[in-house]
Amino acid sequence: MKVVITGGAGFLGLRLAQRLVELGRLTGPSGRPEGIDQLVLFDRQEPAQMPAALDGKAILLLGEISNRDEIFHLVDRDDISVFHLASVVSGGGEQDFDLAIRVNLDGGLNVLEALRARAGLPRLVFASSIAVFGGSAMPAVVGDTVKQTPQTTYGATKAIGELLVNDYTRKGFLDGRSARLPTVIIRPGKPNLAASSFVSGVFREPLNGEPCTLPVATDTVMPVLGYRTIVDGLIALHEADGTKLGDDRAVSLPSLTVTVAEMIAALKRVAGDRPLGEITVEPDPFIEAIVETWPQDASYERATALGLPREDSLDQIVEAYIEDYLEG
Amino acid sequence: MKVVITGGAGFLGLRLAQRLVELGRLTGPSGRPEGIDQLVLFDRQEPAQMPAALDGKAILLLGEISNRDEIFHLVDRDDISVFHLASVVSGGGEQDFDLAIRVNLDGGLNVLEALRARAGLPRLVFASSIAVFGGSAMPAVVGDTVKQTPQTTYGATKAIGELLVNDYTRKGFLDGRSARLPTVIIRPGKPNLAASSFVSGVFREPLNGEPCTLPVATDTVMPVLGYRTIVDGLIALHEADGTKLGDDRAVSLPSLTVTVAEMIAALKRVAGDRPLGEITVEPDPFIEAIVETWPQDASYERATALGLPREDSLDQIVEAYIEDYLEG
Repeated sequence: MKVVITGGAGFLGLRLAQRLVELGRLTGPSGRPEGIDQLVLFDRQEPAQMPAALDGKAILLLGEISNRDEIFHLVDRDDISVFHLASVVSGGGEQDFDLAIRVNLDGGLNVLEALRARAGLPRLVFASSIAVFGGSAMPAVVGDTVKQTPQTTYGATKAIGELLVNDYTRKGFLDGRSARLPTVIIRPGKPNLAASSFVSGVFREPLNGEPCTLPVATDTVMPVLGYRTIVDGLIALHEADGTKLGDDRAVSLPSLTVTVAEMIAALKRVAGDRPLGEITVEPDPFIEAIVETWPQDASYERATALGLPREDSLDQIVEAYIEDYLEG
Repeated sequence: MKVVITGGAGFLGLRLAQRLVELGRLTGPSGRPEGIDQLVLFDRQEPAQMPAALDGKAILLLGEISNRDEIFHLVDRDDISVFHLASVVSGGGEQDFDLAIRVNLDGGLNVLEALRARAGLPRLVFASSIAVFGGSAMPAVVGDTVKQTPQTTYGATKAIGELLVNDYTRKGFLDGRSARLPTVIIRPGKPNLAASSFVSGVFREPLNGEPCTLPVATDTVMPVLGYRTIVDGLIALHEADGTKLGDDRAVSLPSLTVTVAEMIAALKRVAGDRPLGEITVEPDPFIEAIVETWPQDASYERATALGLPREDSLDQIVEAYIEDYLEG
C-alpha cells in the first residue's frame, strides 16, 4: 500500500515516517495488514536535514496542500492511507488569517475530497490540536466531551477539521480519525517566536549547554506529550477498530499534566553528569498572557479505552530526546 | 442603512422582512439606531407569494450564495447588516452533500468575506440550528455549553458556521452573532418530505379542515419555537450588546419543550368552534428512527441572560398562525 504524510518534512512528519519504515506495514483499506511499498512525504519545503533512516525508503514531494490538482495527483491509489499533518501553526495563523484558511481549511478539504474519490474506505489520520479548546467558558479540564470554542484561527480550523472528518466518515466517503495533540516536546532545533517555544527550550537549550530564560513562572502547568508517544499514538489510532470510535472520530491523545518545575526536575535527573546550561526565570507579561489562555489540564478517556499509548514520566521523554538528537 | 436577508424569499426570511419593515430601524455599525433605507431579500428563487406588506419596501434579488462576486456585489455599503438565513436544509443536505458544502460552507464564507471587506464592524446574524447536536454522546439536554457532534451534513455546516462567525468576530473583521434555532412551527403551505414535516402539519392540516396522519407516537417530545418569536429573537440578537456575548457569539434561542399530545391539546383549545380535520397516529418506523436522533430537550441560559424573547405557551403560536395565515 501507499502511505502519504502531508507536512511530511516537518519535525513530527519525519519522525512518523521513520517509525513507519521500521514497522513496514499498516492496516489497508481492505482491513488487513499490508506492506508499505510507497511512502511519500508531501510538503511545501525540504527539511533542514533528511534523516539517513529514510534514504531510499521515502519520497519527498514538494507542493501546495491548497492546490486541489496536486492533492488529487498525490492520492492516486485505492490502497492508500493518509496522515494529514500539514498545517499553518498557531502563531502563523494569527499573523496571516488568509493563509490559515487556505492551508488548513481548503487544504484539508482537498485531502478529504481526494480520498473520497478513491474506491473503498481509505483511512485518514488528521492531526488536530488541544488548541480547539479555549475561551471564557473553557472548563478546568478539557477533553473528548468538551465544547470547542477556539480562540485562534489555528484552533478554529482544527475544530472544523474534526467536524469534516466526522461527516466524511459518516457519509461513507472514507475512514477518518482525528488525533487531538497536546503540546509536543521536545522539539529539536532552535527556539522560535511561538509562545510555547520555552516548553521544548527548557529541556533543549540546557542540554546543548546553552542558557534558557523562562518567560513564565515555574508553577505554570500544562498537558504535554513526547514526540515518540505522539507518533505511536497516530499510528495506533490509524490501526484502531473503527467501530470502537463510533460517530465521533476525534480522540484526545493521552498527555502528562506537569509544571515547569517538574520539567526542570526531570531534566536534571536524567542529565546526570551532563553539563547543563543555566535556567533563569524572567516573566514576560506578553507570553504569560497567552499561556494563561491555554488549557491547564486534559483528560483522555477515549484514548485510554482504545488502548492508545501514554507516557509514564517526563524522564522517558528526556531520555528519548538525548538518544535521538544528542547521541544519534 | 442597508439590510440584507439571504434566503430572504423563504418562509422565515419573508417574516423577518415584514418585521423589519414594521420596525424601520436597526442598530448600525456605528452603534446607533439607523433608519433602514434599503432592504434586500437575496434568494435563488422567487417566493410563491410576495407578502403585500413588502410592496415597495423590499427588493428581491435573485442569485447564488455560492457565487463570491454576487455576494460582494450584494454587500456594497459600509452601513449594512446581514441576516444570513440561506441554507440547504437537513434532508436536502443528506441527498446532495456537495450542494450542502457549496451553499452552506462556501456560501457562508462568501458572506463573511464580503462583510470583512467593508469598513467598520458590520453586524451579521447567522441562523444556526439545534441540528449541530447529535450522536451517541449527546446529553439529554442540549444547549450553549454542549459539544457539537452533528449527525447530518446540514448540522456539520451549521457548527462550522458558528466557529467561523466566532473567529471572524474575534479577529475584528465583523460583529457576528449566531442564533441556534429549534424546530420552527407553524410553517404554512403544504406538507413536505422532511422528517419534521408533521410538527407543523399537526396544527396546519387540521386547521385547513384536512386530515393529519402522525408518523410518531403522541408522547414524542421536542423543543419547538413559533416563527414570530424566532424572528423577534433574530432581531434581538442583532441588537444585543456585543460585549455581553463575549468570545462565543452563538446562542441557543429559547424554546418550548413539548409533547405531540400537548401540541394537539393546544390546537383544540385555540381552535374553539373551528372545524378541525381528523388526527390519527400511524407510526412510521423510518420517521421514528430519525426523530429518535433529535435532541429531546434544550436549555437557553445565554438567551435568557441577553433578554431574548421566549414563548409563554403553544396557544400563542396557534393564535399567531391563525391570525397570520387563516384570517389574513
